[in-house]
Amino acid sequence: MPDSGVILFAHGSRDPQWRLPIEAVASLIEKQRGDIAVACAYLELTEPDLPSVVARWVEQGIHKISVMPMFLGAGRHAREDLPRMVYDLQMQYPALEFRLQTPIGEDPRITALMALIAADSATE
Amino acid sequence: MPDSGVILFAHGSRDPQWRLPIEAVASLIEKQRGDIAVACAYLELTEPDLPSVVARWVEQGIHKISVMPMFLGAGRHAREDLPRMVYDLQMQYPALEFRLQTPIGEDPRITALMALIAADSATE
Repeated sequence: MPDSGVILFAHGSRDPQWRLPIEAVASLIEKQRGDIAVACAYLELTEPDLPSVVARWVEQGIHKISVMPMFLGAGRHAREDLPRMVYDLQMQYPALEFRLQTPIGEDPRITALMALIAADSATE
Repeated sequence: MPDSGVILFAHGSRDPQWRLPIEAVASLIEKQRGDIAVACAYLELTEPDLPSVVARWVEQGIHKISVMPMFLGAGRHAREDLPRMVYDLQMQYPALEFRLQTPIGEDPRITALMALIAADSATE
């Protein structure tokens, strides 16, 4: 069993199809990497939430947890709600090592690839 | 002046910082490509909306318009609201060539890069 993992944290939606692209990222990591755990967690409207995933991972002995905010827009969910949730979880589980990442939409590699795909779509 | 362009279509937010990662993509395209026009447009809460950008581009002689949905989740905004808006615009401007793209979060290149970045964040 891996002792570290990444949680893909997304907004969630009433729409059951909404989560599919996020789950596709998780499936790809599962296929490619046996050395880390991966799970999705959602802020609202979609299960599971972040505390549930962390509680399950604690039981499985995973103690290094990277939280990756799956947001394109840099709003309050990424800037305020999620850091507060991770802070609360760190207080609850002082032995865990949490690392909250920069939102995926602000990663310069994602910015560059989105620019390439969007620009090419105009000249196809 | 270019005769084709891409509109980065995103949700929008009350939060003025929300739009910054989407605008970063537009800025990169502007810097890299002189042959196409680029603009951002928003579904709600953030200006400008899609019809305003299209009306401005029509005045500028841009007649080939690619619409790139900047969504990670595959919800009703991308599946229903946006196709209906593009259909209405096509009816209003029959001489324009609209092409509605697959949402950026469903592009397999984006899925693969997000998986790589997220997985690497767990072992850093």
